[in-house]
Order: sequence, then structure tokens, then C-alpha cells
Amino acid sequence: MTIYDISLPISANLPVWEGDPAIQLEKVISMDEGADANVSRLSAGVHIGTHVDAPHHFLNDGRTVENLSLDILTGVAYVLYLAEDVDAVDAAILASASIPKNRSRLLIRTRNSQQWLQKSPKFIRDFVAITPDGAEWLVANDIKLIGVDYLSVAEFQNPIPTHQILLRAGIIVIEGCDLSQVPEGEYGLYCLPLKLVGSDGAPARTILIGK
Amino acid sequence: MTIYDISLPISANLPVWEGDPAIQLEKVISMDEGADANVSRLSAGVHIGTHVDAPHHFLNDGRTVENLSLDILTGVAYVLYLAEDVDAVDAAILASASIPKNRSRLLIRTRNSQQWLQKSPKFIRDFVAITPDGAEWLVANDIKLIGVDYLSVAEFQNPIPTHQILLRAGIIVIEGCDLSQVPEGEYGLYCLPLKLVGSDGAPARTILIGK
Repeated sequence: MTIYDISLPISANLPVWEGDPAIQLEKVISMDEGADANVSRLSAGVHIGTHVDAPHHFLNDGRTVENLSLDILTGVAYVLYLAEDVDAVDAAILASASIPKNRSRLLIRTRNSQQWLQKSPKFIRDFVAITPDGAEWLVANDIKLIGVDYLSVAEFQNPIPTHQILLRAGIIVIEGCDLSQVPEGEYGLYCLPLKLVGSDGAPARTILIGK
Repeated sequence: MTIYDISLPISANLPVWEGDPAIQLEKVISMDEGADANVSRLSAGVHIGTHVDAPHHFLNDGRTVENLSLDILTGVAYVLYLAEDVDAVDAAILASASIPKNRSRLLIRTRNSQQWLQKSPKFIRDFVAITPDGAEWLVANDIKLIGVDYLSVAEFQNPIPTHQILLRAGIIVIEGCDLSQVPEGEYGLYCLPLKLVGSDGAPARTILIGK
């Protein structure tokens, strides 16, 4: 049994979405200064690193992250590889991909995952993302959870339609998965977002358990 | 299969350890104000709600939270009930408890768990905790992970020895579990702390999966 940790390490060196709050992680109580213990403080937007979008992120009346179903966030998932030259995940790409039938949780590895190996703090705009017709394909094919390997499921210049199509259908979206070390195939997924009350999203430590 | 979510809901209404930073969770980008999306920001100490202590919390040269073993954080765990009149978890209590042999992960439900049903934001000092000799018992009995149901594994007035005994032995400590809804017995535990680089601890969504 192998555990793959597909979560990005959270620090001030992690790229964040343009316009979102910066990540601050600092020790505020310190044994070096004579305290009994070390205590750190985190200040960050909730859409950092490996994280989950709740419907409320792009649907003002949508449910918030503490209400997402753990029955969907955990269970069998398929990791699909797309070739390095795929620039966008559209319906045609998905229709021709070898996704096993009756799989309701899908994680898509693209060339984005290679990006994480560089450990650069720079946000990139030209990441591979899911087009609106790709999102429609996922809804039509009964996908309940979709994971992607950069910080947004949607293209940088056109964030609204892909998010709204997926979130309106109740599909749980995991963004910022590092799939660079994970072979294509089937796994046990455990994606556990922080239980942030009333929030539009939450960082989520996420693992895949292989046989 | 039943999933028990033993994680506390994170909001400004959650009690925090005296002297630790307050919890702030607020929307900083808002569709109500014309934005494309809602985006919240979290600012909090890392020892809030259901969370994991890393050795660095009480041992200045100890390892930090991103290095804790997922092989210990996930796996079979036993939930032990202690009676409402137990005031402290000491070696005698543990020795007389009906803990199955060869269990390396132990979560202890005490009267603390009832506290969470009241949903009070008030921090309490007289919670049930593990005494130093209780901690020595856990080390001697090859426990690798211990979970407790208030915000510290150690008594309020005497935090250092219990923490240091457990953390020096490499035992992973989960604090702030809400076990009020969980029957005594055996479960699959998934405790997934945020991967905070260099941190003394991290909030951790934590679930138990029953048969």
C-alpha cells in the first residue's frame, strides 16, 4: 500500500492566484524568546495550494465548504494522464480519453504537474484548464468530483463559465493537486478540506492510496 | 460504511487557547460588491479546532508538521470511552481500560466531548487531559498516535511534561477531536493536517470510517 501525498506545501513561496491575499506563516510565540512552546499563525486566502472550491465561490446562493459531502470527497478515484501537448481540457479530449466507466471521481494530470517540480513562487497564467464544453462533458458523464493540477479548474481569461457549470451541477472541484509523482490509474482518494464555516473554499490535505 | 466527521467547525465562535491568536474568517472579495467570485481569508493560530501538534511545538529542535508520517496519521484506530467522572487520564486509568492489544492509534473520549455540543465560544481550563504518567504509559505501550477531545493533550496548569514525553517519543498528537457522536470501537482514521512548511502544528480535518 502506497500513500501519495498530492498536496502542495504551504509557505510564502507558494504561488497564489493574482489578486488573492498573500500567504503568511510566521511564529508568533517562540521558545527562542523564552516561551514554553512554539506557536505559529497562518494568514491566507482559502483558495491556496491544494484546495476545494465550494459552490459559493462562483454562485452567490451556493452552499459553503463545510457542507460538502465527505462521501464524495473520499472514495475511489481515477487519475488520468493527458499528454504534455494538450493545451486545454475540452469535451473532445475527454471523450477520447481512456476513463474507466462508472468512475465518479476524476483527477486529471497535465503538464501543469511538472510546474510544481520547479518550486517557483511565480504564478503562471497559461496553465492547462478545463473549457466550458469540457465542464459540460463532465456533468453529462456523471462525474461528482474533479481534480486539476493547477490553481484553477478554469482558464485564466475565462473563469466564470467552467466554474459555474461544475459548481451548479454539485461537482466538487479540487484545485492545485500535484500529480507529478502519481502513475495513471485507480486509487483511494481522501480529500479533507478544513471545516471553515460559511467559506467559499478551503485548503485540503489530499492523498491517494494505491494498492 | 459510516463516516464520522470528528472535526470542529472553524469560525470566530470556536474557543481558542488562551494567548493564541484569534480566529478571523472573512470574505475579502465579494460577489455582493460586483466581483466575479467570493474569496475568503483565514487568519488564525495553527493550533485551532481539530489539529495536530508537531514535535517542534514543545521541542525546539523537533520536526515540523509537514514531516509527520501519513502512515501514522491514517490507519486503524481505537476509540476508547472514559466515564464522565474521570477527571484526568493517568496511567492507572489507561492500564485498567479495555484497549485492544496491538492498537497503535488511540482516541480517548471523555466528558470533554459533551462540551462541544454546547457550541460555546468560551475556553475552559478544567478539561480532562493526560497526566505525565499517563503519557509515559502510552510510550511504554507502543502507542504511535493519540487523540484527545479538548484543545490540549496536557492539563492547563502543567502543559510541558505531557507534551514533551509524547512528542519526544514521536507520538503524533491530535487535539480537539469531537467524539460526541462516535461509539466506542474500531475505525479507519484519516487525519490530514495542512502541509504547513516549518510549522509547529496544523489544523487537520479528521474523520473516522466505521463498518
